[in-house]
Amino acid sequence: MRLRKRSDALDVLRAQPELVPQQPETTCGQWSKGSPLHVELGTGKGQFLNQLAEKYPSIQFVGMEKYESVLATAVERNDGHEQNLRFIHGDVAHVEDYFSEGEIDRIYLNFTDPWPKKKHAKRRLTFPTFLYLYKRVLSPTGDIHLKTDNEDFFTYSLMSFSQHGYHLRNLTFNLHENEPEDNVRTEYEQKFAARGQRIFRVEAYPANEC
Amino acid sequence: MRLRKRSDALDVLRAQPELVPQQPETTCGQWSKGSPLHVELGTGKGQFLNQLAEKYPSIQFVGMEKYESVLATAVERNDGHEQNLRFIHGDVAHVEDYFSEGEIDRIYLNFTDPWPKKKHAKRRLTFPTFLYLYKRVLSPTGDIHLKTDNEDFFTYSLMSFSQHGYHLRNLTFNLHENEPEDNVRTEYEQKFAARGQRIFRVEAYPANEC
Ligand SMILES: C[S@@+](CC[C@H](N)C(=O)[O-])C[C@H]1O[C@@H](n2cnc3c(N)ncnc32)[C@H](O)[C@@H]1O
Ligand SMILES: C[S@@+](CC[C@H](N)C(=O)[O-])C[C@H]1O[C@@H](n2cnc3c(N)ncnc32)[C@H](O)[C@@H]1O
Repeated sequence: MRLRKRSDALDVLRAQPELVPQQPETTCGQWSKGSPLHVELGTGKGQFLNQLAEKYPSIQFVGMEKYESVLATAVERNDGHEQNLRFIHGDVAHVEDYFSEGEIDRIYLNFTDPWPKKKHAKRRLTFPTFLYLYKRVLSPTGDIHLKTDNEDFFTYSLMSFSQHGYHLRNLTFNLHENEPEDNVRTEYEQKFAARGQRIFRVEAYPANEC
Repeated sequence: MRLRKRSDALDVLRAQPELVPQQPETTCGQWSKGSPLHVELGTGKGQFLNQLAEKYPSIQFVGMEKYESVLATAVERNDGHEQNLRFIHGDVAHVEDYFSEGEIDRIYLNFTDPWPKKKHAKRRLTFPTFLYLYKRVLSPTGDIHLKTDNEDFFTYSLMSFSQHGYHLRNLTFNLHENEPEDNVRTEYEQKFAARGQRIFRVEAYPANEC
């Protein structure tokens, strides 16, 4: 995300407490309202979830984002009609504070920061510590849908998933070659596709524990 | 492999019983001679194993190949000095007849036929039935090294490994971009590299059973 810092960002978030709960911990365990619950981690300006929320009214969507400046834009772009979209201003490292065990049916990881340097590997949202957290908040039949333009982050993520309790399916190295009809492009995806870059995609789901 | 059928192929194999054991089943459990045992499945004309056998005299190598016409070439190319290279004329589907449980330290799968049609998927050497066989003949610390030029076969194999008891490591989508010093190019690898095609590579190792 281009991080133009906005001094009004926190005010924008506070002005919409329905859309951005002020104390999201207190909603823990109650996000789904009886519907499937899909969560995008690192939602940025929210373009992807805004589209999904409109397209799938019977699914509850939550976007987590730590930078208030981009989240403020996500909030402003929301047209106010969605009853099924909320945002959490918070860090994915604390995902367990906001969601209860097995509460989430799907996690989206879209173009999250690749952190190419080895010493920053633990910030990648597919670092083992994150994968363990996701396993706890995901339902047993839940899954993670990951898209990225970054080959090194992608190979890293495939290995990390396979080594830490996830199986892989629907793997493609070129999503747009035969773009599925139901693919919803994220903001970053549009940008990278316009430059002719390949988009990688995979679904990871928890291996059966024994 | 280009399959020019040779009428003399079986004679060539029979003429070298040390190199191509006539009854390889009877060697089951005794291939290693106290050394690590590395086996290439679908070895073709044997160029890869001939090089490895020369480079690593303290490892025992075995190449399995079902077509006698290409295996005959592998035998002719062997300069006769290797004490650590043998071939099995047989089908990988019967790998358990030739190797005992846990006997193999490494399996090489190099450019094995991709069988692109779905109805032929079960012939791919990374089809689940094969992965189960490999797990039985591999030692608990053994691994599988796979190289291919075929993207669809590669994504298929990554998913198949991850879903059937293997973890992934040292994954690369472009082996020759930073070619490791110890990489030994196979016959097919040379051919594809000359055409500028990407080479995919991964190592898969058995997940701990519980
Ligand atoms: C490159 S942007 C992609 C945005 C959007 N998903 C898209 O595809 O267009 C990644 C976003 O993830 C957010 N992010 C990265 N690490 C995070 C973390 N630990 N917790 C919450 N958000 C995070 C960043 O602030 C940034 O807005
Ligand atoms: C495309 S060639 C590759 C040869 C060599 N590994 C290389 O990289 O140059 C694949 C070889 O695998 C052999 N093969 C395929 N399926 C096999 C099976 N089930 N059992 C034994 N050999 C097999 C084929 O006969 C062929 O010679």
